[in-house]
Amino acid sequence: MMMRKLLPSWLTAYQRPWLAGDLTAGMVVTVMLIPQSLAYAMLAGLPPAVGLYASVLPLFAYALFGSSMALAVGPVAVASLMTASVLAPIALPGSPEYLAMAILLALLSGVILFIAGLLRLGFLAYFLSHPVISGFISGSAVLITVGQLKSLLGLPLPSGSILTTLSALPQQLPALNATTATLGLSALVFLWFARRYLGPLLKRVGVPVNIADLATKLAPMLAVIASTAIVAHYGLDQSAGVSIVGEVPAGLPALALPSLDKSALSLLSLLLVPAALISLVGFVESVSVAQSLALKRGQRIDPNRELRGIGAANIASALSGGYPVTGGFARSVVNFSAGAQTPAAGIVSAVMMAIVIAGFTDSFHYLPHTVLAATIIVAVTGLIDIDTLIDAWRYDKADATSLLLTFFGVILLGVEEGILLGVVLSLAVLVWRSSHPHIAVVGRVPGSEHFRNVERHQVETLPGLIALRIDESLYFANAQVLEARIEGLVQAHPDTRCILLILSAVNQLDSTALGILTELEQSLASRNISLQFSEIKGPVLDRLRPTPLGERMKDRIYLSTHQAFEAHADKRDERNKTDSTALA
Amino acid sequence: MMMRKLLPSWLTAYQRPWLAGDLTAGMVVTVMLIPQSLAYAMLAGLPPAVGLYASVLPLFAYALFGSSMALAVGPVAVASLMTASVLAPIALPGSPEYLAMAILLALLSGVILFIAGLLRLGFLAYFLSHPVISGFISGSAVLITVGQLKSLLGLPLPSGSILTTLSALPQQLPALNATTATLGLSALVFLWFARRYLGPLLKRVGVPVNIADLATKLAPMLAVIASTAIVAHYGLDQSAGVSIVGEVPAGLPALALPSLDKSALSLLSLLLVPAALISLVGFVESVSVAQSLALKRGQRIDPNRELRGIGAANIASALSGGYPVTGGFARSVVNFSAGAQTPAAGIVSAVMMAIVIAGFTDSFHYLPHTVLAATIIVAVTGLIDIDTLIDAWRYDKADATSLLLTFFGVILLGVEEGILLGVVLSLAVLVWRSSHPHIAVVGRVPGSEHFRNVERHQVETLPGLIALRIDESLYFANAQVLEARIEGLVQAHPDTRCILLILSAVNQLDSTALGILTELEQSLASRNISLQFSEIKGPVLDRLRPTPLGERMKDRIYLSTHQAFEAHADKRDERNKTDSTALA
Repeated sequence: MMMRKLLPSWLTAYQRPWLAGDLTAGMVVTVMLIPQSLAYAMLAGLPPAVGLYASVLPLFAYALFGSSMALAVGPVAVASLMTASVLAPIALPGSPEYLAMAILLALLSGVILFIAGLLRLGFLAYFLSHPVISGFISGSAVLITVGQLKSLLGLPLPSGSILTTLSALPQQLPALNATTATLGLSALVFLWFARRYLGPLLKRVGVPVNIADLATKLAPMLAVIASTAIVAHYGLDQSAGVSIVGEVPAGLPALALPSLDKSALSLLSLLLVPAALISLVGFVESVSVAQSLALKRGQRIDPNRELRGIGAANIASALSGGYPVTGGFARSVVNFSAGAQTPAAGIVSAVMMAIVIAGFTDSFHYLPHTVLAATIIVAVTGLIDIDTLIDAWRYDKADATSLLLTFFGVILLGVEEGILLGVVLSLAVLVWRSSHPHIAVVGRVPGSEHFRNVERHQVETLPGLIALRIDESLYFANAQVLEARIEGLVQAHPDTRCILLILSAVNQLDSTALGILTELEQSLASRNISLQFSEIKGPVLDRLRPTPLGERMKDRIYLSTHQAFEAHADKRDERNKTDSTALA
Repeated sequence: MMMRKLLPSWLTAYQRPWLAGDLTAGMVVTVMLIPQSLAYAMLAGLPPAVGLYASVLPLFAYALFGSSMALAVGPVAVASLMTASVLAPIALPGSPEYLAMAILLALLSGVILFIAGLLRLGFLAYFLSHPVISGFISGSAVLITVGQLKSLLGLPLPSGSILTTLSALPQQLPALNATTATLGLSALVFLWFARRYLGPLLKRVGVPVNIADLATKLAPMLAVIASTAIVAHYGLDQSAGVSIVGEVPAGLPALALPSLDKSALSLLSLLLVPAALISLVGFVESVSVAQSLALKRGQRIDPNRELRGIGAANIASALSGGYPVTGGFARSVVNFSAGAQTPAAGIVSAVMMAIVIAGFTDSFHYLPHTVLAATIIVAVTGLIDIDTLIDAWRYDKADATSLLLTFFGVILLGVEEGILLGVVLSLAVLVWRSSHPHIAVVGRVPGSEHFRNVERHQVETLPGLIALRIDESLYFANAQVLEARIEGLVQAHPDTRCILLILSAVNQLDSTALGILTELEQSLASRNISLQFSEIKGPVLDRLRPTPLGERMKDRIYLSTHQAFEAHADKRDERNKTDSTALA
């Protein structure tokens, strides 16, 4: 019984009819995963075997802890780019230190994500708006593409900023390795053709839609096999200097904690912020893929379980000599459409990858780097997302601007700087929107108890009374704006005797807002203006009542705006009566 | 005419009756400003003269560009502490490089603030909640107090973290300079006594309240004069090793741009983030003081003009050899209560400070550092704010927690780290609150067109229809929460045929939220559930209409919730009729 509780619910409730879908999906994903894991490890500056290692245990770990039924976890393009961009300045790509740091990065990311999941910080995914994510991913895709030109063409291009690389290109072009470039560009054209035309072609000749779609996903594996065979057969690595993967050690790596000597401990603090950024981006990417797939089947994603799932996958990756992983977009979509019903599909992939690592690593010896570069380029150009930009531009210029700024931030400043810029932009937009609460001056619809905006409707107001409806919760980001608005109204209407705040939409009132209202009430009182509230929600009133402001205002809090209007009218009548008595 | 337009409105509309108040306030503030400017310069690790320089031109500049009628600009404790904490690791306090960097810091802060003002970024002040500011200032006050023990007791305490200093204290105590400690502690007791008891005492013997209050503000000046006289008369600097201010160069410094050679340009990038932090803190401090004083007279503060005012003051400070300045709390309150009507009071102070610099710097030669330390300690302990903590704790535990975290962040991690932590905490709380929008399932109040929360009222619902009222704008921080809520409801009620979203409180719908609603509509449609909207606000509907979602939903957007309910009931009746016809 205890055991069953520890197991994920998909496993304890597993139904036999699901098995066919899970098996098919697991196998199809494996065929995509083999070339991608080798390619993305190369993109991250790591030996290709590391990509394979990162494709076994993490899939098991996610199956145990994650919440998505369709997410395919493993090495992905953006996290690989971020790994390279973090590590390249502090270690030599390919060196043992570089690998140790990549493992440490995965461990740190995993621990950060897992703890965040335990602390229920899933809401942190909302730190990034969709336009910012879109700009970030498109920018990363451009960076990756330019970075791969070197391997694709067999050219000694300088790494560094995208401008450095591109400006060196024309000069270096004559030095290109013709055999490498031919192999790479052929693969590129083939892969591009397969993605663009193979599916429709197969459908036209009568192949069922699903199978036609899946067949196109096998193209990268085909390119890998064909190019490896050609290089091996003609010995192009020796005769034409084509750069190849070389020896890939066979066998699964032993489970081990990354060794932490003193210098590694000081590394920890150096890698902490980059690890947090990789975690954030990886998590946001995963959750959005998982959520949009779940939606198609009416399933749900729990962001906090998702944090623990991706966290566990990264810890598992570090323990087995891998590097940061997350849920990838393309493979998850394929997994889903190939019929994956549960994370068992991921376990099928993991087992198949383990078999490849145990027995077939020799096959990758002659795999040319240029074909891996072609695989990467075709995969990431699919991530460049113009539609979101066009939609955002039509719908909301502020969103389109933050998309463009993030895109150019990534390209011109770098990956980490770009994502930080994106976070800051998202939050600045959030603060800016929150700091512009909608506040309407309202009046009574004649003959009713309804109150509407005076600027949009024919309504009646009472002399000396200004009624304001606040259409948002009040907190530090906007309370001062309300205060300024009220001061402005009082200055414009010197005969004001009463300010009525209609708090029907105020769900929260934080202590900054409480402080500002307290100050405002005193300031108004000293000028003989009475502050009044109406339609306060229950929970807000419960907290307000025992405060000094609540004490002072207890006779000026009305249940409905109508009552407040009536009370004001009565008082005015009384005053008028007193005045006329005095006159009489 | 042109000239008049360039001048601030308080100057062109100046009225003679204001002059008395401005003159008195200007003089009283000067008497406070002299000891404080010397002391705060010492706190910043700068020669005392720099504090005087920072008290002349900045006051003119603020008078021209600022918007507060009562803010007293000049050196303040927190900005001085931040200056020291930024510069101490990169230059030797007292060295010419240190001074040059302090000037550069003022210039950078000024430019950042002024540009932010031109870009109308005043809303950035809202990045910090009141509890975070309170925790930050209290923490800084503790740091400052501990840091001054060295000067107060004439002890060679190690600087560094507060724990280092405090743990070294017992060991070092025997090495204390008895004369210095006696002078300093006497001053401390005197100042503390003056602040606590002098006012009430004077009032009891019949001195008018205002004058009694002001007299207590003169205590620091009195302590400075008396201690200087004692040290000079007995030659305590020579005979007892009392550390004194020494020579203060006479004359105003020549106006000059800080010299920018190549190394200074590389410094720029090093100092940019610290300058931005000092700017943010200084601006937030200024604005909150200015706003609470303005409120007492029913005046208004324009945050964007305030940015330009404080920015101009810092640029002026840099040009005249000063360091970062801002509006101080204590001096502004004194300025206000001494009757300042306009920034002319500041100009009076500036002129008097200029006279002091021109002719009286000799008088400060024998001023002992220990008395300045006593002045600082008494000033900053007044800033430690327990009330806000208690209030916040009672009212809102989340706010109290961010206050405490910021406080301990400042004390244990450092000033800049503390304020960064505070910004992050403020924003995390904002995102967290935004990511928990209030969403109520509503039903119809029987026999009416009113709709209320089903959990709080006796209302009627229609089978197959779930009506949700969203009490907040929808954007990236909360749209996914709405989606998850709807999915949860649909799973709990499998007979749902229609989800009605009542958007009466939705003032904004950003493109992330639009994307999520679009996806949700398709997902629901594929399950034969119809998504409907009611009570969309005009501006939101105008933008929604041309989007794909708007197109798809155009027949399912109802003006009122009542109409949507009627339509649903009609359709059900029709369905039932068809069913019974089929049966018949």
